Amino acid sequence: MANLPVNKTAHAFDKVKFEALLNRRFFYAPAFEIYGGVAGLYDYGPPGSSLQANIIAEWRKHFIVEEHMLEIDSTIMTPAPVFETSGHVARFADWMVKDAKTGDVLRADHLVKNVFEARLAGDKEARGQAAQPQKEDEKKRKKKNAVKNVAVQLSDELVKEYEVILAQLDNYSGPELGELCRKYDIRNPDTGNEVTEPQQFNLMFTSSIGPTGQHPGYLRPETAQGHFLNFSRLLEFNNGRVPFASAQIGRSFRNEISPRAGLLRVREFTMAEIEHYVDPDDKRHERFGEVRDVVLDLLDRNVQVAGSTDVTKITVGEAVDKGIIANETLGYFVARIYQFLVKIGVDSARLRFRQHMANEMAHYATDCWDAEIQNSYGWTECVGCADRAAYDLTVHSKKTGHPLIVRQALKEPIVTEKLVAEFDKKTLGKTLGKDAGVVQKIFADLDESQLVKVQGELAQGSSTVVTPEGKEIQLTPALVTIERKTFKQSVREYTPNVIEPSFGLGRILYVLLEHNFWAREQDIERGVLSLPSVVAPTKVLIVPLSAKEEFNPLIQEVSSKLRRAGVFSRVDDSNTSIGKRYARNDELGTPFGVTLDFASVQNRTMTLRERDTTGQLIGNIDEVIGVVVDLVNGSSDWAEACNRLQVYDGVQAVE
Amino acid sequence: MANLPVNKTAHAFDKVKFEALLNRRFFYAPAFEIYGGVAGLYDYGPPGSSLQANIIAEWRKHFIVEEHMLEIDSTIMTPAPVFETSGHVARFADWMVKDAKTGDVLRADHLVKNVFEARLAGDKEARGQAAQPQKEDEKKRKKKNAVKNVAVQLSDELVKEYEVILAQLDNYSGPELGELCRKYDIRNPDTGNEVTEPQQFNLMFTSSIGPTGQHPGYLRPETAQGHFLNFSRLLEFNNGRVPFASAQIGRSFRNEISPRAGLLRVREFTMAEIEHYVDPDDKRHERFGEVRDVVLDLLDRNVQVAGSTDVTKITVGEAVDKGIIANETLGYFVARIYQFLVKIGVDSARLRFRQHMANEMAHYATDCWDAEIQNSYGWTECVGCADRAAYDLTVHSKKTGHPLIVRQALKEPIVTEKLVAEFDKKTLGKTLGKDAGVVQKIFADLDESQLVKVQGELAQGSSTVVTPEGKEIQLTPALVTIERKTFKQSVREYTPNVIEPSFGLGRILYVLLEHNFWAREQDIERGVLSLPSVVAPTKVLIVPLSAKEEFNPLIQEVSSKLRRAGVFSRVDDSNTSIGKRYARNDELGTPFGVTLDFASVQNRTMTLRERDTTGQLIGNIDEVIGVVVDLVNGSSDWAEACNRLQVYDGVQAVE
Repeated sequence: MANLPVNKTAHAFDKVKFEALLNRRFFYAPAFEIYGGVAGLYDYGPPGSSLQANIIAEWRKHFIVEEHMLEIDSTIMTPAPVFETSGHVARFADWMVKDAKTGDVLRADHLVKNVFEARLAGDKEARGQAAQPQKEDEKKRKKKNAVKNVAVQLSDELVKEYEVILAQLDNYSGPELGELCRKYDIRNPDTGNEVTEPQQFNLMFTSSIGPTGQHPGYLRPETAQGHFLNFSRLLEFNNGRVPFASAQIGRSFRNEISPRAGLLRVREFTMAEIEHYVDPDDKRHERFGEVRDVVLDLLDRNVQVAGSTDVTKITVGEAVDKGIIANETLGYFVARIYQFLVKIGVDSARLRFRQHMANEMAHYATDCWDAEIQNSYGWTECVGCADRAAYDLTVHSKKTGHPLIVRQALKEPIVTEKLVAEFDKKTLGKTLGKDAGVVQKIFADLDESQLVKVQGELAQGSSTVVTPEGKEIQLTPALVTIERKTFKQSVREYTPNVIEPSFGLGRILYVLLEHNFWAREQDIERGVLSLPSVVAPTKVLIVPLSAKEEFNPLIQEVSSKLRRAGVFSRVDDSNTSIGKRYARNDELGTPFGVTLDFASVQNRTMTLRERDTTGQLIGNIDEVIGVVVDLVNGSSDWAEACNRLQVYDGVQAVE
Repeated sequence: MANLPVNKTAHAFDKVKFEALLNRRFFYAPAFEIYGGVAGLYDYGPPGSSLQANIIAEWRKHFIVEEHMLEIDSTIMTPAPVFETSGHVARFADWMVKDAKTGDVLRADHLVKNVFEARLAGDKEARGQAAQPQKEDEKKRKKKNAVKNVAVQLSDELVKEYEVILAQLDNYSGPELGELCRKYDIRNPDTGNEVTEPQQFNLMFTSSIGPTGQHPGYLRPETAQGHFLNFSRLLEFNNGRVPFASAQIGRSFRNEISPRAGLLRVREFTMAEIEHYVDPDDKRHERFGEVRDVVLDLLDRNVQVAGSTDVTKITVGEAVDKGIIANETLGYFVARIYQFLVKIGVDSARLRFRQHMANEMAHYATDCWDAEIQNSYGWTECVGCADRAAYDLTVHSKKTGHPLIVRQALKEPIVTEKLVAEFDKKTLGKTLGKDAGVVQKIFADLDESQLVKVQGELAQGSSTVVTPEGKEIQLTPALVTIERKTFKQSVREYTPNVIEPSFGLGRILYVLLEHNFWAREQDIERGVLSLPSVVAPTKVLIVPLSAKEEFNPLIQEVSSKLRRAGVFSRVDDSNTSIGKRYARNDELGTPFGVTLDFASVQNRTMTLRERDTTGQLIGNIDEVIGVVVDLVNGSSDWAEACNRLQVYDGVQAVE
């Protein structure tokens, strides 16, 4: 029936057909394909490009507009000193191993993971267990590569060991990965050769700025530093108030060691990053109440360290109350990330938030939760949500001497008392000459208890200090007095902490496509992409019966009325059957189609087709436009549309 | 009066105040400013970023949506072979000179231009002529640098020589620029030192892809190659039909030699490029009629070569008819570019289209028109519109062996007759052995007249051919016959030509800001940016009388009603007078403001203020929202708004 939703997961995910669809419809393709391509670089074709633009538009609405964030656009090319300060030059690296004979380069953790997974799959096969359907393709791919690891049964102990290591693999250091390779005889699956000890490889692309190569530069691996360096200007733009957030959507680059997982691991990608600046002493969020009841699948670090990957279903409110998520602001963003992903079409049943383990955390982070989405490659990090604390602002401020701080006017001044040394500077200068400055510096470094001691000595007549060069200088009350003074502080200065939700848009786009792909039983060879209207590349397909000129005025009318209502449509007047044109647009994820035929010319009727159910309705052209606009905007659904219009059964309704 | 438009150009352009405003309001700022900055790299702050996003959104509507272009998103990082083939490695370069003593690097053509302009300005001063107000700042800047070139009168002949050279400077080669430096004693203005001979400097940033540096790569200097390499996929996506266009908005990089002109010459920038593919034999455009009467200021190459920069006012229709613009499609895009620029707020009186001279043209172009916009730096190219012919598709196809062509089914097959050599292959093989192939190859290369000759000789009994090695081979009618055959061609294959409109969005953004900047007589210290609503960063400012909580429900209501109507607003509840808040938003280019005060809470009235006139109206909150939405969407103007609402004179209207 037209108004019954079809179960999208009726068929197992068929990766071969899925990839063929993406390729055929040019969602994306290897960049420089006619030159043989380069691993990890992809171009988006028209539907991929529109899908990405729509995801970005929705992201802007959901985060920037809704939360009044300050959007910026900073440069990709970055002079080296910035990343020296931020720690990226020293630490933004992955561990790689080389094939001991061929010199082929492999990423160490991926090698371990792939080999262990292949062995576990071989073990399952040997035990006669059916592999998970989801893993089918993965296994086939592995089989091809994993020279000796097919259908060999492992001991129960070894299976357990592998599983525990896999659960906490992200926590292993380079040398530890090297040990794993030796202990478990992990070799290059392509050749069967041993691999070398893991070495660090910095993932930043290098370049140089200017005609004489005077400025070494890097392509940014994240947009974050561009936010931090502009912190003072942003704070001023926000009238000096905290909390506030900056946001940026833009390209970043990572020179991945050996990218093999399609859009999930690329060398150039579009990110969307938020840097939310908060008072380190107050990480509450004023809108936390709005998300308190959102239920999440959480995988915290303790569970992982114990060798498990079992998630806990819990509300974000409870997770923050129990200290599982460090603070309200972090929890707020985790929930908002969840809402965004589900809104654009990610399957919530395959979405979990995994906490970073201690060694795994980036050098700047104090707590971090990844939104991981399950897909045919496994669980993939698509969004990171880290508390970077005051790390970045502190190091840049220290390096440049430019204060990156908040000055907060205190409602009640803070009154403090402390001991202070007061010098009779004139007499001091006369008596000590150039040592006068040295003495003042020594006193500036003394703490309360030392000052008490000196105060006592001075009361006895004199006190002696020793200069760094070892010279003893005697001081009398005529030169210096120690007194208790009252200080009133009306401004509080602090370096804000930064909560950073960071989105890999290409990864999200890819899993979205996987989660929304299926095939109809009656047309198993062709796919359907059930993308939500909000992100679908084209919202409405206009299908004239043929390319005959008599349909042109109606095509113009319908497409311009839709455009005025803000709905993006496309006309397909190609020389093929209406059914084939609809099938093509099912593959493109177009949620609605309208057909213009001779009845349209005569009676101004138009049929409306819904992609997922293939149900068709008919009505007056303007009525149908009204219905489809409401459907696309989400203010109506197909069930309601079925009430507003007549069911179309292929026979022209009598007017 | 509230409904009289203010003349924006009432005051001369004050560059110092203008730059102070852009900096104070964080439209943009030098990137890595706290690290001392790097020439040619800028970050956009919130208003600059929104302005850019709005320009892009309007560009998408005006070009991509309106003309059903296929949007793509290709990578920036590009393996070297692509740019070797395209000619960029060999030729994408500028000429630079070095200061003979300090080694400082200068771009040769800019050096000549700056020195000549400084000398001409000095000449004017010496002759007691008032310099053009527009050039004031330029001159001051020059003066500071141009050590010896102040207030010296030149001969009338020399003035003429300088002017003629400046008019065609873009046509000079490197060695010619070197000659100019010697002939006119052009030195580094910063030091007075001589400069070296011009050398070529390639403007592409280099990098390397992958962990072992195995793939040298460049950052793209334009997005175009990403379109061309995907041509086959795009054509297929368009169902094989031509003409069609691909479009892309993205970052490009040029390692400029010595960038000094703010946003007008940068090392990293956002471009929007269209590649419109046409039949080389038919460059008509089906919508040309819609733009035929658009009047343009054209500066064609003949005028420039004659040493003049006088524009001709002409319709695009006439320009194409007269052959000034090469073809309809090029003319169509020139007119559409004009319409776009004027729509977003560029002053049409300071917009001209300049044709490239022969030497100036990029290596790939056959005709090219630049949209140049006048600003305080002079006339600046902001959009290029080139006919790249079949250059790119041809070279990539040749290099890769991948056909980048259109296959057009012919309505009427083309029937041709020609002489063809037919071999008795069996006998030929037996008789000639391995020479059989050589003979067939020789015949394949013969033209019609040669075949006629052989035909005649064979009729006489035999014909002799000579192999490349000099061996004579005698052929008889038993081995080969020459006959006239009929061929029917039902598909035509061709490489399309490409018309490329290419937009530098940062340059457009900058001139837009200059063209819309002015100051009120009563508040000359503060500026106003009269940006059109369509691109203004914020459309409506919501100003509550104070930050008191009682205004919150109304703020929420107004802002959410505006958001639902698609209008982007911001609330300013900062602790300063309403007048100051409006003044700040005049500087941000916010076209409308609404004020919520106690009367709003009591009577649900709200005042509406227009930025350019500072006129204020008052009405019921929902009425005012209706008016402001129409104003922002452009479906109403201020004069009409004055009829729909009451004038507000500071006294609360009685309800």
